[in-house]
This record gives sequence, C-alpha cells and structure tokens, in this order.
Amino acid sequence: MPDRYPTMTAADEELVPAMTSWQRHRATLDTALETIRTRSYWSPHPEHPKAYGDGSTGAAAFAALRERGRFEAPGQPGTDAWVGAEVSPYGFPLGITYPHPDPDVLLPAMLAGVPAWRDAGPERRALTCLEILARIADRTPEFAQAVMHTTGQAYVMALQAGGPHAQDRGLEAVAHAYAEQTRLPGHTEWAKEQGRRGTLRMTSDHTPVPVGVSLLIGCNTFPTWNGFPGFFASLATGNPVLVKPHPRAVLPLALTVRIARETLAEAGFDPNLVALAAEAEGEGSARTLALRPEVALIDYTGSTEFGDWLEQHAVQARVFTEKAGVNTVVIDSTDDYRGMLGNLAFSLSLYSGQMCTTPQNLLIPAGGITTENDGHRTFDEVVADLAGAVNRLLGDDTRAAGLLGAIVNPAVTERLERATGLGEVALASRTVDHPEYPDATIRTPLIVKRKEPVENEHFGPIAFAIATASTRDALDVLRRTLRTRGAMTVSGYTTAPEVERALVGVCLDERAQLSLNLTGGVFVNQTAAFADLHGSGGNPAANAALVDAAFVTPRFRTVQVRRPG
Amino acid sequence: MPDRYPTMTAADEELVPAMTSWQRHRATLDTALETIRTRSYWSPHPEHPKAYGDGSTGAAAFAALRERGRFEAPGQPGTDAWVGAEVSPYGFPLGITYPHPDPDVLLPAMLAGVPAWRDAGPERRALTCLEILARIADRTPEFAQAVMHTTGQAYVMALQAGGPHAQDRGLEAVAHAYAEQTRLPGHTEWAKEQGRRGTLRMTSDHTPVPVGVSLLIGCNTFPTWNGFPGFFASLATGNPVLVKPHPRAVLPLALTVRIARETLAEAGFDPNLVALAAEAEGEGSARTLALRPEVALIDYTGSTEFGDWLEQHAVQARVFTEKAGVNTVVIDSTDDYRGMLGNLAFSLSLYSGQMCTTPQNLLIPAGGITTENDGHRTFDEVVADLAGAVNRLLGDDTRAAGLLGAIVNPAVTERLERATGLGEVALASRTVDHPEYPDATIRTPLIVKRKEPVENEHFGPIAFAIATASTRDALDVLRRTLRTRGAMTVSGYTTAPEVERALVGVCLDERAQLSLNLTGGVFVNQTAAFADLHGSGGNPAANAALVDAAFVTPRFRTVQVRRPG
Repeated sequence: MPDRYPTMTAADEELVPAMTSWQRHRATLDTALETIRTRSYWSPHPEHPKAYGDGSTGAAAFAALRERGRFEAPGQPGTDAWVGAEVSPYGFPLGITYPHPDPDVLLPAMLAGVPAWRDAGPERRALTCLEILARIADRTPEFAQAVMHTTGQAYVMALQAGGPHAQDRGLEAVAHAYAEQTRLPGHTEWAKEQGRRGTLRMTSDHTPVPVGVSLLIGCNTFPTWNGFPGFFASLATGNPVLVKPHPRAVLPLALTVRIARETLAEAGFDPNLVALAAEAEGEGSARTLALRPEVALIDYTGSTEFGDWLEQHAVQARVFTEKAGVNTVVIDSTDDYRGMLGNLAFSLSLYSGQMCTTPQNLLIPAGGITTENDGHRTFDEVVADLAGAVNRLLGDDTRAAGLLGAIVNPAVTERLERATGLGEVALASRTVDHPEYPDATIRTPLIVKRKEPVENEHFGPIAFAIATASTRDALDVLRRTLRTRGAMTVSGYTTAPEVERALVGVCLDERAQLSLNLTGGVFVNQTAAFADLHGSGGNPAANAALVDAAFVTPRFRTVQVRRPG
Repeated sequence: MPDRYPTMTAADEELVPAMTSWQRHRATLDTALETIRTRSYWSPHPEHPKAYGDGSTGAAAFAALRERGRFEAPGQPGTDAWVGAEVSPYGFPLGITYPHPDPDVLLPAMLAGVPAWRDAGPERRALTCLEILARIADRTPEFAQAVMHTTGQAYVMALQAGGPHAQDRGLEAVAHAYAEQTRLPGHTEWAKEQGRRGTLRMTSDHTPVPVGVSLLIGCNTFPTWNGFPGFFASLATGNPVLVKPHPRAVLPLALTVRIARETLAEAGFDPNLVALAAEAEGEGSARTLALRPEVALIDYTGSTEFGDWLEQHAVQARVFTEKAGVNTVVIDSTDDYRGMLGNLAFSLSLYSGQMCTTPQNLLIPAGGITTENDGHRTFDEVVADLAGAVNRLLGDDTRAAGLLGAIVNPAVTERLERATGLGEVALASRTVDHPEYPDATIRTPLIVKRKEPVENEHFGPIAFAIATASTRDALDVLRRTLRTRGAMTVSGYTTAPEVERALVGVCLDERAQLSLNLTGGVFVNQTAAFADLHGSGGNPAANAALVDAAFVTPRFRTVQVRRPG
C-alpha cells in the first residue's frame, strides 16, 4: 500500500534542506494553534516602531522599487501587458508597473503545481506559509512604505497595521487552516463486531485536498491586513492563489506575491501557485476573473455593491466578502465621561475614519446622558465635549498628521464636503498640513448633528451625532441599521445592566460584534489577531469573519480512501 | 455584567425537570464527540432487526396513521390546506394528508422562538436534539414502515437505513455542531503588556448565534438518512428548521417533525422551531421557499438539475447539495475474484440500485484481468461471471425481494427499459414477485456491455460493463467522468501498487471518495456514520459531505462581546 503522502521524488529530496531549516517555525505554529484556542494576547511580530530601526532600509528599498519602475514577477507566465498608475496619497506617482496576465495562460499554469503542493500535506504547507510570513516580516519597513504610499496611512500605522498586525492575521489564518485540516486523523482503523459472522475491519486514509484557484481581490485601504487572511488560508489549504490588488494599492500585495513565489520555488514547489494579476485602473478585471471556472474561492474586501454582485454571480465559487456597514455607537451613560470622549475622539480620527470599523452614527438620547464624574450632560453638551476632545487630540498639525494620515482618494473628500449639508455641523473638518508632504490631503473629522439616523455608509472622516428619543429608541435604530445595512462594529456606553443586556440582545439577534464601555487604550475600530473576530459574517456588512473555522473549512475537502484492513 | 446565557426566566425554570432528565444524554454526546475524532465503529442504536421485536408495533402504528388520514402537527400556524398523495411502491395509497403552510404566516412564527433557543446554548440544544433522536429511536419500527412504504426499500433495509443508521447520522451531526460551536471558549481574558504604559486588559464573551430559517428539501429514496444530518446540524446550531419533504416520501419526515415539536415544547421551547411544509405533487414549492429572505440555509438531496438551480439562485442562503453523479468501478486485477464478484453483485442489487452510491459504470480492460485464484479472465468472462453472481444472489424470489425492495417510481422502470437499447445485454433485468405485495414492481439489475462509457446517470438497477483499452484508459475515463459528472463513490480492484497509486491520485485530483478491493461485507454503496464521509463535496455530484466541519460551520456565527477587563 502506498504511503499517505507519495514517496519522495527528486524534487522532494531537493526541498529537504529548506524544509529542515523551516522546522524552526513549528514552535511558532504550535503557539499559534494554542492561541487561537485560548484567545489570549500573543504575537511573534514586534509592533513597536523602534524594533524596526529608523525606517531607512524601508525607504531605500521603496526608492529602489520606484527607480526600477517595472516590478517583475520572474517566471510568471502569460503576462500580456505592464500596467500600474498608483499615486501616493502623499502626493506623487509611484511610477511602478506590474504584470497584467492573460488568464487563459496564467490560470492553467497555476493549477500545474497543485498535486505536489497537495501531497506535501498540511504541516509542510503551514511551515512554508510561515517562512513566507517570516520573509515578509523581515521586510516590514519596506512594506510600511508600500502601505503608506498606496493607502495614505500615516507611517506608524502603515508600519503596524500593514506589518506586524497583518502578519499576525496571516499567521492566525495558517493556524486555523492547519487545525481544520488535521481534525481527521490521517489514518484510521475501524472494526465492527458482527457476532458469529466475525469482525468487519477497514482502514481509511484521509487527505485534505484543495478545491481550485483562490482569487484575492484586494482593497485600497488595508491591502495586507485584509488580504493576508484569505491569502494564507487558501494557500495553507493547498489552493493556488491569484492576487488581484486594488489598482491604487498594488505594491504591498505585489511584494507579497514575489516573496511567496521565491519561497515556494526554494522549497521545490511550483512558484506559479501564487501569481499577480494587476489591472489597469477602470479595467474591472475582477469581474472577469471572478467568473472563471478555475476559480473556486474568492476573498473580497470593498464596496457593498461589488460584494453583493460577487455573492450573486460568482456561484461557481465560495465567496468570502467584507463589504460596508454602518457602524453605530449607542451612548446611554458612562462612569468615565472623559475616558469615553477621548476614546471616541481617537476612533473617529484614526486614519481619518477610513476604516470599515470606524463608528459613524453616534446615537445619543435627546434628553442627554448621565455621567458619574461630570453629572448630567445634555445632548448638545455631549456633542460639544466630543468635538472638544477631537480638537484637543488633533490640535498640533504634526501630531494630527501622524494620526490622520492622508485621504486615500478624492471620492472621500467629495463625500466629506457633501456631508456638511446633512445637518448642523457640530465640528467642522479642517485641513491639516503635513510637515513633509505638502501635496497630501489631510482632513480632520466632521461631526454633524441630526435628528434622524443616516442610513447609508459615509466612508471617511464623517460622523453623525443623532438625537434619539431615548436609549430604547436608539436600540431600535441600531437593530434596524444592523438588519438593513449591517455593521462591522457596534459600540456601547452604559452603566445600566438592563441597557447592557438589551444592547447585547440586539447584537446577538442581528449578529454584530459589540464593544462595551471602551474608555482606555482599546478602540472599537481595532481588532487583534487571535483574540478578536473582525466582523461576524452574519449581517449585511460581511459574510465572513476574520478568522474562524468557517473561514477555512470551505477551502478544502477531505478525500477518504478506504480498504479492508 | 450579564451571564453569557441570560438568567433563567419562568419558562426556563419549567424546562429544568425535562432538561435534568436529558442530562443522561451527555454521556452519549461525549462518546459521539470522541468518535467523530477517532472514526472508529460505534453506535448507540442497535441495527439487528431482532432488537426491534417482530415489527408488529410499527405495523400497528402505521395502520393507525393511515386510519386517521389527517396527520396533524398540533399548533403549527398558517396551515392553508391539507395535501398528500403518497402511494406505497408496494402497491397501495397511504391515504394520509399533511399541513400545507402559508409561508407568510409560518416563517415569521418560526423565528419567534429563536432567541430562547439561541440563549439555551450549545449543550442544551445538543441534549434536546439527542432527546428527539431517542424518541425517534424508540419508534424505529414505525419509521421502518413509513420508510418502506414511501421509498420502496425492503423492510429490513428500511428498518436499518431509515432507523439506526439515519439516527447515527443525525447524532453525528449533533456532535459536529456541538464541537464547532464550542471551539471558542465562552469567556476569555486578554492582557497585553504595554511597557511603561501598563497593561491593557479585556474580557470577551463568545456566543454562537443562528443565521436564519433552515430549509430541508427531502428526497424520495432516503428521507431520514439523507435528511437527518442537515436537520440536526441546523437545529443544534440554533436555527429553526422548515421541512419540505419529497411529495412521495412525506411520512418519515412528518413523524420527525411531530416528535421534534413535542420534545421542544416539553422543554419549554417554541415548537415552531420545527415545522412541516408538505406540498402537493407537482406544486414545486421548494422553488418558492428556497428564495424566501428568511431562509438562510438549505439542505437538498435530489436531482442535479434542481440542485444546480438552488446553488445558482438561492444566493441569499448557504446551500448544501447532494445531487447525482456517475459512480465508477475500475477493475484492474484482484486476489479474490469470487469475493469481488459477490461484493459487486450485492452492491448492484441492494435496493435495486436506487442509491446515489450504487456503481453504474464498470470499467474492465478489453484484454481482461488477472486474478490469483482463477487465472486470467477475459472481459466477456468477467461480465458473465458477474451476471452469474447476481443470478445466484437473487435466484430465490423471496430472498431477492428482501434485497431489492420495490421500484420507487415509474421513471425508474422506464429508464430501465430504455437502457436495454444502449448496448449488448449481458444480464437481463427480470421481474420478481413479492410474497406479500403482488402489486409491487420489483426488478433485478440489468447489465449492458458497451465499448464507450455512459456519460450520464442512470438511476436504478442499471449497470454498464465498459471495455476499456487498458487500465490506464480506464483511469482517463474515470477522471473525465469525475470532472464532468462527479461521483458519490469510486471503487477500484487492483493488486498492482502502481495502479492503486494512480487510482488514488485521480481521486485526490478530482476530489472523490475511493473504496479499494472490497471483497467482503463492506460495500461501496454504504457509508457508516462517524467513520465514513458520504460524498466529498468537491466534485459535481455534491457540494457537501456528510458529516464534516464544513457541513456545520456555515450554520452559525459567533458574536463577541468585549469589555475592558
């Protein structure tokens, strides 16, 4: 009988040196496996900027990429054009072009290496993925530059969210993929007593097998953080991954693809298991690629409109979407008024609110709220105090620029201008000058007072303070918003157990993730790998959560080979 | 702070007596949890007919149901008609009618009880499901009658496959659902050291929450065996389940619904969490129900045409399908020729081949095969010997009737007649008289010799012996069939390690379940709960496997409530 994994071929023997060295990642994998279970804090990737030196290596690498101009993916077949028109939100064109593939050539080539990758088994695949992540981590300052100058994130955020935090999410996905692929033992024995007819005996081998090409459709604002989970979940389960970055944020994922291809080749696997499909701006190649019969998995982060289109049309694939929602904060009462204001001010300001998790609708009783240290505060006082907290946070331009980053594209600025007409402006958005990049567009949050909730998403530095008849009314608004628009995050402030219980009830009913009484250094718009689920996958904002078992189990099937034993 | 599960209400307190008694199922759940991991043999449900007495209680209960005529589902709202026209394949109308619902009334009512069922948590839900299964198991002889007289299965098969084996599959689904819902701890604590800025601490509660109404679209041939996995997986994950049986096989699932409703009510839950939606023959209500916005999950067993339609159109739901495939046997060589013939003869005969797992295309090299005990056998000899084995197995009419059962509907007989024109008849199908039911249509398997494979499914007692140029050619045919039509089962006979390796390779590539060298008492068309995956979910025959983690993880989401800790 054959082994579960075929006897080593020449190619396998060649990969042994690399694989032997990568066995050092086994300890990392084991800790990750333990941590997805305990949900405690852990990361192998330092997050303090000091850990990455002064950033000069990254700046030099970024300059060299721009100097070179053409971003080669050596050996990737079927390139029929070189495209790319990225412009840094800090005010200059990147001047880099990337391979644009002919899918009729590239997709079949991506499938050629699948059997060897499948036969390598879950552990080798996981260790190879961890080596890819380790090489990405080694180049975090370069990724920081790439993320900063495609998304507009400020440098420190680009470094952290685009670097260690994204790498954590990727590692988390690898751990989940490994855990799910190894739930069934590789080999089992079965014996059924049949009385005087003796005993039936069977043995079975269980092999996790991939399902087809996995298409990653990247987003503009968090190309690595939102991209790595699907990328690594699919690769670790044996699927080739085709990366179609957002045309304005190609570089971070192009670097990822190149590192992955190099690592795979070094281990003796086919580098075409990972490939890049850059598109020209406005080409809309995601639509074409998503309907290809070779594509069995799609990971998408972006607009609700296109996410819905994918879910409805790419029926040959399993589609994982993170779309848009309307994130709500319910403010009922607090025992730490200043903490609440500071926490909310930070959440509204971080990356100019250009996060799928930034609060938008702040529901505040028209009659005001109770606070422990500051007594009763009227609706207008709460809004004015929040505006004051934002102003204090962003009073210094240099500090403000470091928190806000740059506006990612002109549509955000246009939306911001239009939003001033939606109610009474309680806090005007102001322009901030960047000390280094005079052409960057940097804007502080706008807060608009309204009597009615705003039903659709206003992506960017736009918040609405909405006067509700009561907290009960706010909960009704929340439920309606969750049901019709969904939300990536819900936040609540209350000291009343019955309000807390009702708020939890609405979030359980409508399947939304809830953060309660955040007044310190944890913010509703941030989720930590291993501990926090990003989205619930159960309301209109997203059909998947980062990262749970449901995010990886559809990416492979199990083939059982049974024999009399 | 509230408990993870809300404080007991009056209704909860009332359920305690029932729940306390059902704690006895915890040991069964624990063994099931262990067995889905070890994949060893285990069942709490005896399979020997003797365990169920002489069947008279079942016959009496069945007679009483027919006598009563109207099958009430007490308390189920929105019934606008009574429908039902089941005719036993053994030759008499059942004369039973069932509630036909107005979905505008029934579906909202099914959602009303969801919060309490959700708040009960995974363990209480699992124990309630196990109590439902225990009550079903107590009435196995009645289910045997119901299954026999809707599907045409012979009594012993109806008893076993429709009784204990189906109950095992349901229990397996409950175990998987419980395991997946409890992967995340209910409560976690998280602490992140921040150097001189102190330590960030958070706590999180994780609650599995249901996704919406689960629609079970039942099949004609195995209403309980194919229906229980989805039914219990959805109910155990907190979803209400609407059961739409096949119009020719309503009774087994109607009994299931009634028992579930009684059990839920006894535990203080809303009985409308489970409801029956009978349809008139030809009404096509599955199409209407499948597109309802309340429906978030669909389990379907049946034709490829409608399964494909569901996958393409019911995009608001997660659709689990088992459709049709073309099951192939590759015969290369054997060291137990008589064992092989006997095993295949049984597989072709059981329930007149009316199983989604029955082999159809037998690929045999035109040059014949090698056997250890019987030397070289030509293609014609192998086919003739197989025909002889079938004849020996079915030589006695009474014994034959007990193995074949009755033809489920006239479409099968028509297909059988047409198939005689598809090649040279090597074994003619003959009519068998039933000792007790003269009006039953009972037919033995037809074997047709061909030079070309038959590309589409011929459901029923129809097998094709196909002369291939070589075993290598047979593997090419197998691969092509798997890719275009899919298969629930693949079977192979070979003594050559390189052939075995190649056969395994094709099945891994095309994601098909393979049984090798079955010559004894295990048959390719049977899969055992806990040990065997039914289908792979990775080829065109089905998009789901019974039962793996992927079968349950999409049925719930996890809501995380986090607080500073």
